[in-house]
Amino acid sequence: MKKCEKRSECPVSRTLDILGDKWTLLIIRDIVFKGFRFYNEFLETGEGIATNILSDRLKMLESKGILISKKYELQKTKKVYLLTEEGIGLIPILLEMLVWGQKFDDTLLIPGEKIGIMDEMIKRIENDREAFLQELIGAVKSFDTENYC
Amino acid sequence: MKKCEKRSECPVSRTLDILGDKWTLLIIRDIVFKGFRFYNEFLETGEGIATNILSDRLKMLESKGILISKKYELQKTKKVYLLTEEGIGLIPILLEMLVWGQKFDDTLLIPGEKIGIMDEMIKRIENDREAFLQELIGAVKSFDTENYC
Repeated sequence: MKKCEKRSECPVSRTLDILGDKWTLLIIRDIVFKGFRFYNEFLETGEGIATNILSDRLKMLESKGILISKKYELQKTKKVYLLTEEGIGLIPILLEMLVWGQKFDDTLLIPGEKIGIMDEMIKRIENDREAFLQELIGAVKSFDTENYC
Repeated sequence: MKKCEKRSECPVSRTLDILGDKWTLLIIRDIVFKGFRFYNEFLETGEGIATNILSDRLKMLESKGILISKKYELQKTKKVYLLTEEGIGLIPILLEMLVWGQKFDDTLLIPGEKIGIMDEMIKRIENDREAFLQELIGAVKSFDTENYC
């Protein structure tokens, strides 16, 4: 349908130019699903991102206007990372990756309760998508109103 | 919401383990939106993928059950690459990347007619998503019925 003459003329390709690695979307996931906002939180996430990769990706995401960093009023040596509207726009991609990863790549299933939580999320994405998306966006935006400058 | 102890316990992370690079999803895009099926078609796509990267990604996608290759009956030295159900399941991720790339990363807009085509696709994804998805799936599956063994 769409002919891509150069890498950057195709929107899928342009998206992959920014997000096409293993780590960038995990930072966005940590903000959206875990409520993380600080460098050390991203560093200590389960997948073991290296400090140089994390620094690089945070800078890149800021330069692309996907994240903004602000001083944290309660502890001024710390920076807080927040999603912009452009960053919030990535949530639907995350949701589809969550559905695919859970449905098709079940080589490592999560035992017990965790499956339940994930299945419930998948059900909401499939049957109640818009409301679920708005809840996530609301939660992300609620962090943006206090203690940052 | 979901704690990822190890990289592979989170479905988003598992998806990125497979698709988290700049090229893998472009091969899937070429199959879904351009109807490509052959190695040389993927090689000559606009973004200039290197032969070694293309070979590597095709093998990986086959090993993960996302693509299958079959002999092309009309020219038996050629292989044809087809999406499995698991591969078809990636289309929603592509659609969301298309929307994001078009809406937010508009550094290189496509002139004239091409914008119209893309805008129309975005409208269908946003307003007529399920029908559009089923049309794409139907088109992908229609390639699977003839000339391959």
